[in-house]
Amino acid sequence: MPHEGVALRIRRMPLDTGRENIAVLPASSHALRPDLFRGFSRVEVRAPGAAHPNGAIIASLLTSDQPGLPGPDEIGLAEPAFRRFGLPEGTEVRVAPAIPPESLDAVRRKIAGQTLGTDEITAIVRDLAAYRYADIEVTAFLVGAASFLSTEELLALTRAMADAGTRLTWNHAPIVDKHCIGGIPGNRTSMIVVPIVAAHGLVMPKTSSRAITSPAGTADTMEVLARVDLTTEEMRRVVETCSGCLVWGGHVRLSPADDVLIGVERPLGIDTRELMVASILSKKLAAGSTHLLIDIPVGPHAKVHDGNEAQRLRKLFELLGDRLGMVTEVALTDGSQPIGNGIGPVLEARDVMAVLGRDPAAPADLREKSLRLAGRILENDPQLRGGAGYGRAVSLLDSGAALAAMQRIIDAQGPPPARSELCRLTVEIPADRDGTITAIDNLRMNRLARLAGAPIAKGAGIAVFRKIGERVQQGQPLYRIHASEPFEFDFALSAAQADSGYRIAG
Amino acid sequence: MPHEGVALRIRRMPLDTGRENIAVLPASSHALRPDLFRGFSRVEVRAPGAAHPNGAIIASLLTSDQPGLPGPDEIGLAEPAFRRFGLPEGTEVRVAPAIPPESLDAVRRKIAGQTLGTDEITAIVRDLAAYRYADIEVTAFLVGAASFLSTEELLALTRAMADAGTRLTWNHAPIVDKHCIGGIPGNRTSMIVVPIVAAHGLVMPKTSSRAITSPAGTADTMEVLARVDLTTEEMRRVVETCSGCLVWGGHVRLSPADDVLIGVERPLGIDTRELMVASILSKKLAAGSTHLLIDIPVGPHAKVHDGNEAQRLRKLFELLGDRLGMVTEVALTDGSQPIGNGIGPVLEARDVMAVLGRDPAAPADLREKSLRLAGRILENDPQLRGGAGYGRAVSLLDSGAALAAMQRIIDAQGPPPARSELCRLTVEIPADRDGTITAIDNLRMNRLARLAGAPIAKGAGIAVFRKIGERVQQGQPLYRIHASEPFEFDFALSAAQADSGYRIAG
Repeated sequence: MPHEGVALRIRRMPLDTGRENIAVLPASSHALRPDLFRGFSRVEVRAPGAAHPNGAIIASLLTSDQPGLPGPDEIGLAEPAFRRFGLPEGTEVRVAPAIPPESLDAVRRKIAGQTLGTDEITAIVRDLAAYRYADIEVTAFLVGAASFLSTEELLALTRAMADAGTRLTWNHAPIVDKHCIGGIPGNRTSMIVVPIVAAHGLVMPKTSSRAITSPAGTADTMEVLARVDLTTEEMRRVVETCSGCLVWGGHVRLSPADDVLIGVERPLGIDTRELMVASILSKKLAAGSTHLLIDIPVGPHAKVHDGNEAQRLRKLFELLGDRLGMVTEVALTDGSQPIGNGIGPVLEARDVMAVLGRDPAAPADLREKSLRLAGRILENDPQLRGGAGYGRAVSLLDSGAALAAMQRIIDAQGPPPARSELCRLTVEIPADRDGTITAIDNLRMNRLARLAGAPIAKGAGIAVFRKIGERVQQGQPLYRIHASEPFEFDFALSAAQADSGYRIAG
Repeated sequence: MPHEGVALRIRRMPLDTGRENIAVLPASSHALRPDLFRGFSRVEVRAPGAAHPNGAIIASLLTSDQPGLPGPDEIGLAEPAFRRFGLPEGTEVRVAPAIPPESLDAVRRKIAGQTLGTDEITAIVRDLAAYRYADIEVTAFLVGAASFLSTEELLALTRAMADAGTRLTWNHAPIVDKHCIGGIPGNRTSMIVVPIVAAHGLVMPKTSSRAITSPAGTADTMEVLARVDLTTEEMRRVVETCSGCLVWGGHVRLSPADDVLIGVERPLGIDTRELMVASILSKKLAAGSTHLLIDIPVGPHAKVHDGNEAQRLRKLFELLGDRLGMVTEVALTDGSQPIGNGIGPVLEARDVMAVLGRDPAAPADLREKSLRLAGRILENDPQLRGGAGYGRAVSLLDSGAALAAMQRIIDAQGPPPARSELCRLTVEIPADRDGTITAIDNLRMNRLARLAGAPIAKGAGIAVFRKIGERVQQGQPLYRIHASEPFEFDFALSAAQADSGYRIAG
C-alpha cells in the first residue's frame, strides 16, 4: 500500500499481552473502520524515530468501547508493543492496513509441503525476531516446520536464528558450555559444573533461561544467590575475572526468534527433536561457544524415553553441531527421577551450595552427575591427559577450589535483588502403602512445584525425601510441599492428593 | 485439577477481541499470580447458570495495570467471552488454571503425522465449536489438517462440523441448493437463481455468509434489498410462502466450527482443497440440502487456475457429497474476470435487479451464468424432461415470474435495516495505453472494492465498464471507484494507481 495512512496519536494501553503486538482502536473511530480490521486484521503503525526496525511495528487490532481509552484520534498500543515502539504517548503516528510480511508466502509453501531455501528461512526468522508475525502466524510456521524439516532447512534455521540477535565473541579459546534438554526436576548441575570448570581455568560463560513451564530455570535458582540480569558488558567483566559466569540470557538477546517460537511451542506442547536442536544450538552459537556438552536425560518420565530415541537425538545434535563448527558432545544421563533433593529455586540453591560446600548431607546424585559432566568438559583442555577429567573435577570440588570459584562469581555478579526464604506453608505427602518406590513422575513433580508457586515465589517448591529403590512404610513422608500463598497451597495439595507422582510396589 | 479455584466476580472489559475468549486480571491480583498465567496460559471461569456448555468457559489471560479495571477481586471478560458466559457483571465465579481440552492430544498426534479416528476428530470439532481452543490451538489444528487429511478423516471432519451446530430439517424434498467456491468479484448469481428456482416451485432455502475478506457476500448484497438476519423460525415461514429465501446463515448457527476455522484460515491465507470442501459441505449438510450444485470458477486469477485442478476439486466434491448422502453436481465456469458490472453490495444489487427486471442494459454475463446454473438445478425436478432446465429458466426469467418471486421473498423477509445509497466519492480509473484488455485480476479488483469501503459501506465498490476482449484507448475509463470516506478514497485510489488490475496489450 503506497498510501501513508491515517494520522493518529499513540496512547499506552494498560494491558499486557505477553508478547504479541496488539493495537486498540475505539469502536467508534472515525479514522479507521474497526470493522474492516476486526479479529486478525493487522495495522502498521509508523513514526520517524520509532525504536523498531524501519520505524514501524505491525500489530493485531482489537477494538475498545470504553470512552476515551483510546480517544477518537488515538491508537492504543498495549504492552509490549508500546515499549517496542519506544516513543512517548501523544506522538503522532501514521496508521495503515499492514502489508503481511512477504516471508509468510514461504510459510504457506512450507505448509504445502515444499522445502524452503536458506533465503526464505532467513527472511522468516528475521520477521519472527522483529515481532512482525501475529501469534497465529508464528504457530503456522511452527506447525509447518514441526511436520518436516530437511537437514539443510534445519541448518539454515539454526544459523538464521543465531544471526537474528546478538552474537557474542570472546578473546579466549576454547569457550566451553553445557546444556540440558530439560524435563528433570532439580538437576541444577550447571551451578556446580561452571565453578569446577572455572576453577580449572577453562572459560565457561554460561547464559541460562528462566523457567517457562518448569518450576525453576538455572537463572531463577542462581538469582537466589546473586544478581543474574547482567548486561553483555557486565557479563564480560565477570568472565574476565572469574573465567565463568551464571547469568540470565534475556538481556543479551541471544536468538530472539527462538524466544518467539518457544512462546507458542510451550503452550501448544509441541516439542519436536528438530526444533529443540535448532533452539539449543542457535542460542549456543550466538553465545560464542566452541565446545558444547549436551545432557540428554533418558527415562520413562523424561523427554527422551528410551535408548533408541536418545541415539537419534544424539546424532542430530552431533550432525548439526559439526556443520555449525561447534565441537559437540552428548552425554546420555539417568532421567528416571529428580536429581538432588530440591525442586524450586531456594531448595535447589541449597542443594548446589551443599555439594560445593562438601556438606555430608549433600545429595550424592547431584554431586556425582555434576562431576561427570564437569569431567567431560575438562577433557577439552589439551593440557589434561585423556581420561583425567573426572579425577580433576573431583579434586577441584573436594579441595574447595570450586566453592571458592562460585563465591568469586557470586561476588562479581553482585547481590540478588531480594533475599529469598523458604516458604513456610508446608505439608508432607505420605506414602499411601508399604513397599518399594519404583518410579517418580518428573512431569508431575514439576507441576506440583509450579502449582505451589515456584519459580515466581523462589521459596516455593518440593523437598524430596525419598528416591527410587528405597523402601517406605505407609504414612512415611515422601516429600514436603513448600507453598507461597494459601490458594497455591490448596492447588498443590489437592493435586498431590490426586496423584503424588510416586509409584510404590511390592 | 480437582481444586475449585479462586472466587472472583466477573466484570465486562470494554474490549472486543473478535472471537477468542480473553480474560483479564489486574497485574497486582492477590488471588492469582498473573505471572504464572502470562502469555498463553489459560484459565477456566466457572459459575452455575453460565450460558456456556458445562457452565464454564476457557479463556486466555492478559494482565491489566489500570487501577480498578478490573478490580483486585474481579476477573475481566472481554467481548465475546462476556457475552458467551451469559451472566451479569458482579456474578461470583470460580477461576482456576484451565485443564487443556483433551482433544489437543489428538491435534498433536495429527501434527506428528498420524491419521485420526472419527472419535478424535469429533472431539476436536466439538471443542472448536464451543470456543475451547485458543487461536494458536485452532491454528495448530488447521495447519496440521492442511498438510494431510485422509478421505475418512475428511468425511469425519465434515460430518462432525455439521453435527456440532444446528441441523435444519425440511418437510419437502428435494431441497436444492447452490454454492460458489468464491474468488470472483460481482458474480451474485444466487440472487437470480433462487427466484427462478422458487418460481418454478422447487424449494431452495439459501443461507449465505457475509463477506470476510471479499467486498461482498450474498448476505451483504441481499441486505441492500431486504432484511437478512432472520431466525430459523422466520426463515421457515419465508420458505413456506415463497419456496425460497436469501438469508444470512449467522443466526442459524450452521457448522459453527467452520466459522472458527475460517477465522484463522482467512488471515493466514491457508486455503486447501480439503478444508474448503469440508467447510462448504458441512454447512450444506447442516442446512438440510439434498441436491447441491457447486460452482467452481476457473481462471488465471481465480481460486482454481486450470482444468486439472478443477477436475481434482470436482471429484473431491462428488466423492464427499456422495458419501454424505447429498446429490452433488459441479459446474466448472468461466473465472477469468468479474461477473456482472458491479463489485460491492449496492452495485451488485443493481445488477441483480436489472437482470430480474429484464433491463436491456443488464449485464449479459451475469444473466447467462445465472440461467445456466438455474437450469441445472431445475433438472432435479423429475417432472421436467431431461435437458429442458435451461429453457425453463429462461422462460421463468423472461416472463417476469422470477422477478415476482424475488419481490415475494423481499416482502416476506422484510425491509432492510437501512436504506443504502451508492457512495458519492468517485473517481474513474483510465486505461494507461491503447489496446485490447487481455486479463482482469479478480483478487486486485476485490481488494480495491474492499479498500473503498465495501462491504461495511454498502454503497462503496467498483462499477466495471470494460471486460476482457474489449478495445480501449488510453485515457478511456476502465471502471469507477465509489468510496465511502475520504481516507478510503485515498487508499483505493493510490492502490488502483499502483496496479489497476487490468492488463492491456496490442
